[in-house]
Amino acid sequence: MADFAFDEDSRVVAAGAEGAFTAALTGRWNGTAGAVNGGYMLAIGTRALALAMPFPDPVVVSGFFLRPGTPGPAAVSTSVIRSGRTTAFGEAALTQDGKDVIRATAAFARLGGGPGPGTSTGTGTGSGTGQDGPVFLDGTPPALPPPAECVGIPVGSFGLASIAERIEFRSAELPGWFLGRPSGRPASEFWMRFADGREADLLSLPLLVDSTAPSVLELGAGSTTIQLTVHLRAHPAPGWLACRATTRFVSNGYHEEDFEVWDSAGTLVAQSRQLALILPVAS
Amino acid sequence: MADFAFDEDSRVVAAGAEGAFTAALTGRWNGTAGAVNGGYMLAIGTRALALAMPFPDPVVVSGFFLRPGTPGPAAVSTSVIRSGRTTAFGEAALTQDGKDVIRATAAFARLGGGPGPGTSTGTGTGSGTGQDGPVFLDGTPPALPPPAECVGIPVGSFGLASIAERIEFRSAELPGWFLGRPSGRPASEFWMRFADGREADLLSLPLLVDSTAPSVLELGAGSTTIQLTVHLRAHPAPGWLACRATTRFVSNGYHEEDFEVWDSAGTLVAQSRQLALILPVAS
Repeated sequence: MADFAFDEDSRVVAAGAEGAFTAALTGRWNGTAGAVNGGYMLAIGTRALALAMPFPDPVVVSGFFLRPGTPGPAAVSTSVIRSGRTTAFGEAALTQDGKDVIRATAAFARLGGGPGPGTSTGTGTGSGTGQDGPVFLDGTPPALPPPAECVGIPVGSFGLASIAERIEFRSAELPGWFLGRPSGRPASEFWMRFADGREADLLSLPLLVDSTAPSVLELGAGSTTIQLTVHLRAHPAPGWLACRATTRFVSNGYHEEDFEVWDSAGTLVAQSRQLALILPVAS
Repeated sequence: MADFAFDEDSRVVAAGAEGAFTAALTGRWNGTAGAVNGGYMLAIGTRALALAMPFPDPVVVSGFFLRPGTPGPAAVSTSVIRSGRTTAFGEAALTQDGKDVIRATAAFARLGGGPGPGTSTGTGTGSGTGQDGPVFLDGTPPALPPPAECVGIPVGSFGLASIAERIEFRSAELPGWFLGRPSGRPASEFWMRFADGREADLLSLPLLVDSTAPSVLELGAGSTTIQLTVHLRAHPAPGWLACRATTRFVSNGYHEEDFEVWDSAGTLVAQSRQLALILPVAS
């Protein structure tokens, strides 16, 4: 059975020294600027860490993006920093030609099966006490039309953005930046899933939260990520993921971008935030 | 001239090897549980990094909290991972008795003087083009009564929480958790400043964003931080800082806490988010 693209392209192979792995970055996850997607590289680092850590589930991953990655061989060195009773911490460095491309730090634990009874209220603000303590939910999934009634940017619209062939996005309307009319509102809601049918899991979420065009395109600006923190909050149920991306503050040449991922059961499965540098967009 | 408490207690001294420093954790920044405050330790790591980096300003700092810190000697080892044209990246480890207490990674740059014309609108959503590119601001400082009309928890209410003597907090009303009536709403707005008159700067913000009681106290729960990411967005103007702390999602035994810091000129100077474990509160 052939692997799904994500599993094939994020594979890491033990390389002799303890905690050392090799990987091969492919050109199949390039963004609109033709660069290897940062979240894809962070997912590779997380996958290598998962092999080294005493707990199965990443609960928070922080990645710093030092250099652009290029398709080709990479080395990933990992180390377990601290292994506690419920939480373990590790670091990973992904290098190419001996140069650091990303540095990642992560905490791993055993994540419970569900968010508790709070989600079953479906009321937006839920609260209660689950098997793992109190539950409080001040937020709901985006209210999107069903995926079949949504539209997606035609694959192939961007010659360089191969990631658009790997991940499907659907929204109620095509984004303003794509139509040549940036909306001035750097926020969006949309469905997302792997195009080849692979279901999302905790290890692929660091890629998925970084896989869309930056919200600041709606301000006529481009962006390059400096740092990305991903909180993994629950194991995603199979199916489409409902997402919300928002930038609230652009100033001094920087912006943040927040990202929420909700699974098909209406559970928040990931929350991420990145700090990025504003770039001019070629017109 | 005597140093301010923060400068004295976060001092790092070069220790021979390149990038190596010693520090002394004091008991003057303990939280309600009597533990050394995590943000205080992250500020020490950031201050050590600032001595090693080719740019003056931290723009994003990520800290992982591996073990509780204890008052006493600590070692801080730093390394510059990558020095680019506009951004440099570094790592710091704070250890006590040879054991890792925190790991920090940060990006440094030269942060512009102000957020551009967007803030002068005072309308909440501002936009324009500053010297460093586009400006977009979808948010405003908390609408608080002047500090003189606000109230603060009496210093000394918590025998163990020495941090309450170092940092002043004022809010329109005393928090529900303090009055023994948790409000059920894990969000708050308040003023904050160093009690001894030290003005906030970029190096003290990693402490300040972690210096308040956790929002989940309003749910009757306690909390211990696993990871904290701080975005430093502008140099703070002197005076009181207006802050907003919010937890939106408590599930599976974890919660996030978001924190905004606005300076006296109405500029967003820091945005932080942490992932924390829910703890029972001793009743």
